[in-house]
Amino acid sequence: MATIKDSVHDHIEVTGVAEELLDTPAMQRLRRIRQLGTVSLVYPSANHTRFEHSLGVYHLASQALDHLGVAGRTAERVRAAALLHDVGHPPFSHNVEHLLYRRTGKLHDDVDELVASGRVGAVLRDHDLDPAAVADLIAGDGRYGQLVSGELDVDRMDYLVRDAHHTGVPYGTIDHGRLVRELTFRDGELVIAEGNVQTAESLLLARALMNPTVYQHHVARIGKAMLRRATERLVDDAGHDPERVRRWDDADLLVTLRRTDATAALADRLSARDLYKRAVWAELDDVPASLREADHERIRELERAVATDADLDPGAVILDVPPAPEIRESSSRVVVNGEIRRLDRQSPLVSALRTAGRNQWRFGVYAPAGAVDRVGRTAVRTLGLDIDGALVSDVRRGLDATLDEFG
Amino acid sequence: MATIKDSVHDHIEVTGVAEELLDTPAMQRLRRIRQLGTVSLVYPSANHTRFEHSLGVYHLASQALDHLGVAGRTAERVRAAALLHDVGHPPFSHNVEHLLYRRTGKLHDDVDELVASGRVGAVLRDHDLDPAAVADLIAGDGRYGQLVSGELDVDRMDYLVRDAHHTGVPYGTIDHGRLVRELTFRDGELVIAEGNVQTAESLLLARALMNPTVYQHHVARIGKAMLRRATERLVDDAGHDPERVRRWDDADLLVTLRRTDATAALADRLSARDLYKRAVWAELDDVPASLREADHERIRELERAVATDADLDPGAVILDVPPAPEIRESSSRVVVNGEIRRLDRQSPLVSALRTAGRNQWRFGVYAPAGAVDRVGRTAVRTLGLDIDGALVSDVRRGLDATLDEFG
Amino acid sequence: MATIKDSVHDHIEVTGVAEELLDTPAMQRLRRIRQLGTVSLVYPSANHTRFEHSLGVYHLASQALDHLGVAGRTAERVRAAALLHDVGHPPFSHNVEHLLYRRTGKLHDDVDELVASGRVGAVLRDHDLDPAAVADLIAGDGRYGQLVSGELDVDRMDYLVRDAHHTGVPYGTIDHGRLVRELTFRDGELVIAEGNVQTAESLLLARALMNPTVYQHHVARIGKAMLRRATERLVDDAGHDPERVRRWDDADLLVTLRRTDATAALADRLSARDLYKRAVWAELDDVPASLREADHERIRELERAVATDADLDPGAVILDVPPAPEIRESSSRVVVNGEIRRLDRQSPLVSALRTAGRNQWRFGVYAPAGAVDRVGRTAVRTLGLDIDGALVSDVRRGLDATLDEFG
Amino acid sequence: MATIKDSVHDHIEVTGVAEELLDTPAMQRLRRIRQLGTVSLVYPSANHTRFEHSLGVYHLASQALDHLGVAGRTAERVRAAALLHDVGHPPFSHNVEHLLYRRTGKLHDDVDELVASGRVGAVLRDHDLDPAAVADLIAGDGRYGQLVSGELDVDRMDYLVRDAHHTGVPYGTIDHGRLVRELTFRDGELVIAEGNVQTAESLLLARALMNPTVYQHHVARIGKAMLRRATERLVDDAGHDPERVRRWDDADLLVTLRRTDATAALADRLSARDLYKRAVWAELDDVPASLREADHERIRELERAVATDADLDPGAVILDVPPAPEIRESSSRVVVNGEIRRLDRQSPLVSALRTAGRNQWRFGVYAPAGAVDRVGRTAVRTLGLDIDGALVSDVRRGLDATLDEFG
Repeated sequence: MATIKDSVHDHIEVTGVAEELLDTPAMQRLRRIRQLGTVSLVYPSANHTRFEHSLGVYHLASQALDHLGVAGRTAERVRAAALLHDVGHPPFSHNVEHLLYRRTGKLHDDVDELVASGRVGAVLRDHDLDPAAVADLIAGDGRYGQLVSGELDVDRMDYLVRDAHHTGVPYGTIDHGRLVRELTFRDGELVIAEGNVQTAESLLLARALMNPTVYQHHVARIGKAMLRRATERLVDDAGHDPERVRRWDDADLLVTLRRTDATAALADRLSARDLYKRAVWAELDDVPASLREADHERIRELERAVATDADLDPGAVILDVPPAPEIRESSSRVVVNGEIRRLDRQSPLVSALRTAGRNQWRFGVYAPAGAVDRVGRTAVRTLGLDIDGALVSDVRRGLDATLDEFG
Repeated sequence: MATIKDSVHDHIEVTGVAEELLDTPAMQRLRRIRQLGTVSLVYPSANHTRFEHSLGVYHLASQALDHLGVAGRTAERVRAAALLHDVGHPPFSHNVEHLLYRRTGKLHDDVDELVASGRVGAVLRDHDLDPAAVADLIAGDGRYGQLVSGELDVDRMDYLVRDAHHTGVPYGTIDHGRLVRELTFRDGELVIAEGNVQTAESLLLARALMNPTVYQHHVARIGKAMLRRATERLVDDAGHDPERVRRWDDADLLVTLRRTDATAALADRLSARDLYKRAVWAELDDVPASLREADHERIRELERAVATDADLDPGAVILDVPPAPEIRESSSRVVVNGEIRRLDRQSPLVSALRTAGRNQWRFGVYAPAGAVDRVGRTAVRTLGLDIDGALVSDVRRGLDATLDEFG
Repeated sequence: MATIKDSVHDHIEVTGVAEELLDTPAMQRLRRIRQLGTVSLVYPSANHTRFEHSLGVYHLASQALDHLGVAGRTAERVRAAALLHDVGHPPFSHNVEHLLYRRTGKLHDDVDELVASGRVGAVLRDHDLDPAAVADLIAGDGRYGQLVSGELDVDRMDYLVRDAHHTGVPYGTIDHGRLVRELTFRDGELVIAEGNVQTAESLLLARALMNPTVYQHHVARIGKAMLRRATERLVDDAGHDPERVRRWDDADLLVTLRRTDATAALADRLSARDLYKRAVWAELDDVPASLREADHERIRELERAVATDADLDPGAVILDVPPAPEIRESSSRVVVNGEIRRLDRQSPLVSALRTAGRNQWRFGVYAPAGAVDRVGRTAVRTLGLDIDGALVSDVRRGLDATLDEFG
Repeated sequence: MATIKDSVHDHIEVTGVAEELLDTPAMQRLRRIRQLGTVSLVYPSANHTRFEHSLGVYHLASQALDHLGVAGRTAERVRAAALLHDVGHPPFSHNVEHLLYRRTGKLHDDVDELVASGRVGAVLRDHDLDPAAVADLIAGDGRYGQLVSGELDVDRMDYLVRDAHHTGVPYGTIDHGRLVRELTFRDGELVIAEGNVQTAESLLLARALMNPTVYQHHVARIGKAMLRRATERLVDDAGHDPERVRRWDDADLLVTLRRTDATAALADRLSARDLYKRAVWAELDDVPASLREADHERIRELERAVATDADLDPGAVILDVPPAPEIRESSSRVVVNGEIRRLDRQSPLVSALRTAGRNQWRFGVYAPAGAVDRVGRTAVRTLGLDIDGALVSDVRRGLDATLDEFG
């Protein structure tokens, strides 16, 4: 058994298959992938990695399994999946994930191949665990898949408290100790036991508050957009194989970007935190549906159009169109007065989260600081935004004020 | 200047009028009044007092005033009000407040007389501060009254983080440092500056989660109901003057209850934590409006009726009818895109809080452990509750399970 | 099993005999005995009680037993002793312990009778545990007595972190999680395993720093001296039975002191924090041995002599002579390079602690604020202190400066 | 003014010259230099950087200056020095500092050139600050140099609490709030005010406990030795300019090591945490003075000799000889009874620290896991260590046990 000191959960005891998995290069790579990518440009203490997060998820999964009374091979499989659940992350975590997905067809939780091959596969087989079954758990399938990847999963419990600890933003400070104790199976489904509506609500509310404050902070989004643009050029123009880039760590990507002609300028800007600024920052209702639903190619076209209209280099404008706010139903279940109820039916707060996502959605147009006024006016016209063009720079001045704060 | 070490805000510097107010017997009495009354029967670490909370509120008010650029006599007045805001609390804080109110006509924030007389009044006048103006601030009046007593007041900011620190329940851990920084005046109104919708939401959500988990935990409510019953007898049957009881500390009340014949039995039960149990625990829709709106006398009558029907001593049953869930509008204002908006219009989460209050409302009937089945069945029938009588003990069994947890 | 939320250890699971012991009036009384007595006059947040501390000690003992692989009846006995270890504490913990000892012959850990009788004795016997064996463990006897009461005991681990959490003074923040893991038996002796010299050092150093800063802070000592004087009168002059006083809680003692003529004045001063001040504060070498070794009667005589010489009421001066600094050897053992070594031989820091105790020792003379100059000069002369009489008030002025800080 | 959220000090307000310095590439580079280098191989959460530490030092310096009543240009200069104090750190902080020093003659605090040139120099001059004066403060010179770099400096205050926060090891949790308040000038010297012996002791003791547990943990030392060996080859064999390497960030160094033939093997081992193990781990008295005092060249020779004797590749053995334990006197001063005293004279704990340093000193010989037995025996013989050769592998087995823990 290895005992590892963690800044969030204190002592984490790692045993069995997990102890051996920890020593594989695939797991050790996660030490060099920041959990929150460019968020550290806003919150300078947020340098924690996927490695310590993976240990935390393993730790909470172990505790939950103990409370659920699950032991033996089943438990070993779930613990292996918990430890390995992020092994497929590309450098800078989610920041370049979709870009690589468009070229490789793989997201970070598509790890069948990864956990079946190399040292990881060997360790799993040595412990009589089927890599495919472990990969299924990571994808959220099977009876225990919900524990590893679902609305009440231990992944979310760990990242909320960990991100709070490292950013200093307290909204993520949930009562994970209680959540882990109150998970239970009813009719084959993972639910939260009687008397815990607030326990369940708090998990979803914590995420709803961390989302705009941390994960989608506009400075982090600008950094991410610049990183994505640079990485795209690295793959498309400089010929780097996306399958290899996917296996890099943050250092590989950053240094390669800096040492490649086509990307050096953007990479140096990122290194010096000389970021683009917001030329437009628009709410959902102000953005035409055609733009919100545009595909990747169409967005590239529009970027070039705005840049050209504003007399800028065709690559100097970035359009940042987040996916439509999710309106899927919450799958969390709680027990109230002896019956299983859907959390969003029981909790008006949770059902309000859907609308909240809509209100938090923002479309951004980014450009170098000196050009934002011009780009803003041009973009409103070119993109057909429902904003009075004359007002753009006024609104921008208001936004600039908030840039100071953590900006 | 005195520097005081606090477990929540670390070093608190107390100067000017506040330093002298601190030494008055009226303020020192708050050292012996627990912030959360009977909540410590559920959360054993929750023994913090109104004294340290008052220091915390003073501290946050001082910081807010600095950020707002308010200085001089106005600031001294607000700081005095912040420090004194709880000086009118009876023993066990809110637990017996309404009972004494029915006899004295005074709630804890009705302090005109208190701050005008004795050492407190003398200190205020020595510093050229008008006690009546300080009392107005404590009641929430005037330009700065919102800072001392309002929806975004520093009182709430302090108690949420303090209660979280001492109970161990993390939901109250808000970002008070940011809130205090982001308060600003717009058109004479205290609002939260641009870019802080989540900051404002988090304050209201934190309270919504702490409420059922901590403040209205059923065990705390049972303890409070027993304490109220005993104190009522002390005043009505044993002839203690409610005006004097109001000025006692927790020790005075507890020891007097134990040493008075009419109340010793209940007081000993409280001391030994030998509490009544829930015979009924019903949601809003299951309770007839006539019962929800019954006045104090009517409730006493019904208690006696249920007790008699269940062959118990007339005082052995307690009906606990909380006030109707508030549906008043939120008065918090935030700046969004340069305009002042009502927080509940901007935030679907905050507007959902109204419904949440409804869902969290519970009516309780409490009785000694051995009699709960009988009392439960009788109460359903006598009170006309919309619960199948036969089910009461089943539901109760379900509730008993949750009693274990923190119960 | 009951799960209890604690502000220090988060969730504490209480099972078996401990769960039943928790419900006894003897244990519940500890809810109303402050862990640190008059220390809350210095650190206003320090209102935590012996009850939550007892839960914490039980929790750490359970963890240590798990790591040591001790189970069954032996473990139950140790857990019972851990939970009950403070059940013999008088009101205000150590503050009046020695005063009552002089009349009853019993210290707080002399609990043979207490754990054998009443509900506690009944619960222990129901679980086939011998009360005498439990009392022995509490006194530190037997193989596992060191775990409950010794230099590396879980009692100290809990109170250091708990006192740090509630005072805000961080020096007590040790790594209890590691200590509990690294305890091991070698040749029948409890030692700390290889690689943990710092782990062991930190426990003793934490105590050495907390001692003068918290436990022996001069304001706490003055409050304690006043409380002791008042309690002594209660027993000697007002005829209260010391055996009964020993079983009171803080509220009983405080209210009785306030309601008794002989003690009301002192009690009201304590309630209003209108404390005596230091007339003398002298280091070890400045105090004649005859005074340092004087017995209780002799000290009372000297107090009266100083008071009379200073034209004060004979009871208005308090001499506070702490016991001689301990120079007993440390009994802690650590494993270094495979051999068991005495910690004070291995660690120059720990061996330096003996001298540190000497340097921290202070003799105090306390009197009402208006009389300190006069009492100071008189005391130097009457007691033969090695301080230049003319300097007393100067030094006192220096001390006054530090009174501001947390004073 | 920029307000930055920090995980340790919460909100940090940055104004004046500091706000502009923050945006220079020289400061931004510190975002990519881990504060503790290879310590993250032991404590996986320890990924914090010199950037956030520099902000923390700036913050504490600002607070100390406020308390000392220092304002205006002098204060601006000290704040600039505080923010810039680590701007000269090479990649991986101290890990390769001395290696580069042997080639460049510059340590991390030798920054005259750095702060005079480029954007940093321009910003300083724009604010009428003399870069040379700022560099002097960073080197600890001048009246305020002690605040930036001395035994009681704010640098140490920040790193202790920050390292504690991020490693999870609590020993560094000092009361920095009090230290900063109690600094004062007496006779031109920075001292700690009356009543603060423990405050001063705690700072030095915290460091003494963190040192072996965190900073000199054997796994961190092994990682550092391997990194140093690889970097040495990069400079000597692969021809990289040490002056340029000094200005790299962690990513530059790591990626270059991995992509250079001469260093790829070692770099891959570091990336996969496939570390060398201890073949010898000897206390001070067991190591001949000739070895302890050997210069760099001589140590290289001995390494080759041991490797050759053990039939290994000449570069496969690393000798890790720390500098002799410092026995310089403590320069900290405290006020006791009105006079300035040297802390090590006043505090037996602090004077014991010198001996403690001696006891913590360890000489290490490291080699690939499979060869440690052989290398251990050979090294004892070749280096003339005072250890029975036959015992080496036994002792090593004991050490292996401790490797598990955090290893």
